[in-house]
Amino acid sequence: MSCGEFELIARYFNRVTSSRRDVEKGIGDDCALLNVPEKQTLAISTDTLVEGIHFLRDIHPADLGYKALAVNLSDLAAMGADPAWLTLALTLPDVDEAWLKAFSDSLFELLDYYDMQLIGGDTTRGPRSLTLGIHGLVPAGRALRRSGARPGDWIYVTGSLGDSAAGLALLQHRVRITDPAVHEALIKRHLRPMPRILQGQALRNLASAAIDISDGLISDLGHILKASECGARVNIDALPLSSVLRDHFEPEQVLRWALSGGEDYELCFTVPEINRGALDVALGRLGVPYTCIGQLAPESEGLTLLQDGKPVTLKLKGFDHFDAR
Amino acid sequence: MSCGEFELIARYFNRVTSSRRDVEKGIGDDCALLNVPEKQTLAISTDTLVEGIHFLRDIHPADLGYKALAVNLSDLAAMGADPAWLTLALTLPDVDEAWLKAFSDSLFELLDYYDMQLIGGDTTRGPRSLTLGIHGLVPAGRALRRSGARPGDWIYVTGSLGDSAAGLALLQHRVRITDPAVHEALIKRHLRPMPRILQGQALRNLASAAIDISDGLISDLGHILKASECGARVNIDALPLSSVLRDHFEPEQVLRWALSGGEDYELCFTVPEINRGALDVALGRLGVPYTCIGQLAPESEGLTLLQDGKPVTLKLKGFDHFDAR
Repeated sequence: MSCGEFELIARYFNRVTSSRRDVEKGIGDDCALLNVPEKQTLAISTDTLVEGIHFLRDIHPADLGYKALAVNLSDLAAMGADPAWLTLALTLPDVDEAWLKAFSDSLFELLDYYDMQLIGGDTTRGPRSLTLGIHGLVPAGRALRRSGARPGDWIYVTGSLGDSAAGLALLQHRVRITDPAVHEALIKRHLRPMPRILQGQALRNLASAAIDISDGLISDLGHILKASECGARVNIDALPLSSVLRDHFEPEQVLRWALSGGEDYELCFTVPEINRGALDVALGRLGVPYTCIGQLAPESEGLTLLQDGKPVTLKLKGFDHFDAR
Repeated sequence: MSCGEFELIARYFNRVTSSRRDVEKGIGDDCALLNVPEKQTLAISTDTLVEGIHFLRDIHPADLGYKALAVNLSDLAAMGADPAWLTLALTLPDVDEAWLKAFSDSLFELLDYYDMQLIGGDTTRGPRSLTLGIHGLVPAGRALRRSGARPGDWIYVTGSLGDSAAGLALLQHRVRITDPAVHEALIKRHLRPMPRILQGQALRNLASAAIDISDGLISDLGHILKASECGARVNIDALPLSSVLRDHFEPEQVLRWALSGGEDYELCFTVPEINRGALDVALGRLGVPYTCIGQLAPESEGLTLLQDGKPVTLKLKGFDHFDAR
C-alpha cells in the first residue's frame, strides 16, 4: 500500500473548513487544546458504529458519514447542548480513496452546518468501524437529563416514530413496497436522521427530563422512568405515525416499529403541566411536530400501554447489541 | 446470550471509585457533563487499539486494560497535561465475564492511580477493539507542543529506548533469550509502559517542544522537526539503551529497535540552552533517567544521524499502520 497513514489522514480529514475560536490547537499534535467558555458546561458522548451491526455492508459512504455524526449529535440534542467539537477514530480494512472522499465530504458538510470542528482522532487498519467522540456546550446548570421527571408530567416525542425501522426493513428486503417515492422517503428516514438540536436547546428551561430515541421508544422512555423513579401511561393511539407508514403497512407492524424499532433519533421528553403553554411557544415555531403521548405516573405503576383507554400487553424489546438479534 | 448490554456495562464499568469534583454527571445519561476549572485548557486525545494490529490475540486482558490507558496517558504527558477523564468504546465479539473482570480491574487500578474518572463510552459487538478518549487539563497557555523548538535547542529523551520493541519480538518468537528474568523484564516494558506524566508536567516551563515516542524515535522526532521547521543532529552513540538490551542482542538490532521500534512511550523533548540547568533540577528528582541525544539544526540540514561524530545512513522507518508491515 503506497499511501501512508499520516498522509491519508492529512488529505481527507485535516480540512480547516471551520475554525472555532475555542479551539486553540486542532489536529496535528499529541492532543487537541480546547478552551471552554466561562459558565458553560461540557457535554461529552461517545458512540461506536460497527459494520454489519450498526450499518449495512453496502451503505454508501456519504450516508455513513452523515449518519455517524447525526446519531452523535442526537445525544447532544438530548442534553440541550450546542455542538462544538468532534473526534473520529476510523478503522478501515484498506485505503479506498473514493470511499474516503465520499465519507469525509459528507461528514464535513454536516460538521460545517453545525459550525463544528474535527479536533482529532485516529486511523487504524482493521474491520471497518467508527468511534465518534462528540463535545458540546451547555449553559451551566441547564442541561437536560434523564432524571428530574415527576409523576403528572406529560410525555412528548418530536417528529414521527417507526419510519427509520421501516426504512431498515426495506433496505434488508424484509418488507416490500411498490411506490418508489414512499420507498425512498422511508429509507431516507433511516439513513439521514435529523438530530433535534434546536428542539433540545428550546427545551432547556421547559422539560423535566429528556432522552433521544435510539433503541426504541419503550426502551428509551424506560431510561427516563428508571432515572426519574417514575411509572408512565402511554396512549399508543396517540403515537405520531407518518401517513406513509400507516398507509402501507399492517397496524401491528407499524406499532412494533414505533414502539421498539429504534434509530428514530427523535427526542422523548417530559414537561410539567405548568410549562405546557410555554412549550407550544418554544417548539411551535421550529417546524417539527411534537406530540403528547402520555403522562408520568408513580413508580409503583410501572409502564402501562393504553389502547382505546384500556391497558394492553405487547411483546416488545428495545435494541440490545448483545441480545440474540 | 443472557446478559444484556446495559447490565454488562453497569456491572464492570459503572464503578464510582473516583468521584472528581469537576464531573457533574458521569456515566448514565446521553452525555457526561463536565466543568473545566477556570484558567485551564482542555487537552483531548483519541486512540484506537485493534486486535491483531495493536495488540496480540493472546494478550492477557489485564495487560490490555493497563496498556490501552497507558498509551493514551502518554499523549497527555507529551502536552504536560494532568489526566482527568476517560471515555471507553469497547467492541467485543462476545461477553466473556472473566475477560471483562480482568480487563476492567486493571483499567480501574490505573484510573484510580491518576485520580481519573471513566465518564462514558459505548459497548458494541464486533471484532475486538477499543477506542479511548482521554481528557486532561493544563494551565492556560502552558501546554507543550510539537512546534516551538529552535535550531540550537538540545534534544532529550526520557528512560531507555528499544526495550518495548525487543519485548514485542520476544512475544512474537522472532528472537530468543535464555535468561527468564531478562525475558520477563523486556516483555514488561512492552506490556506495561510507564506514561511520563510527571516529567511532562515538569517540562511545562522548560521544554520548547515535546512528543511521546509511539512510532519510534526517528518518526516522532520527525514530527517535532516538521512542526518546528528544524533539522537535527542525533548522536546514536548517546541513545539511552538498557543494559539488558546491550548485553543480549546484536548492536545493529538494538539500534534499529531504539531508533524505529516504536511503542517506547518515552518523551522526546527539546530544551533551549538557557533552561538546561533548570531542567536538571526539575527532572533530576523524579527518578527516571533522561538523556541528551543531540541538537536541533536549521531545517535545511534535515535529520542527520551521527556515529563516532560522523554522519551515517541507516534504512529505518517508523510504525505506519497502512504500510506493508
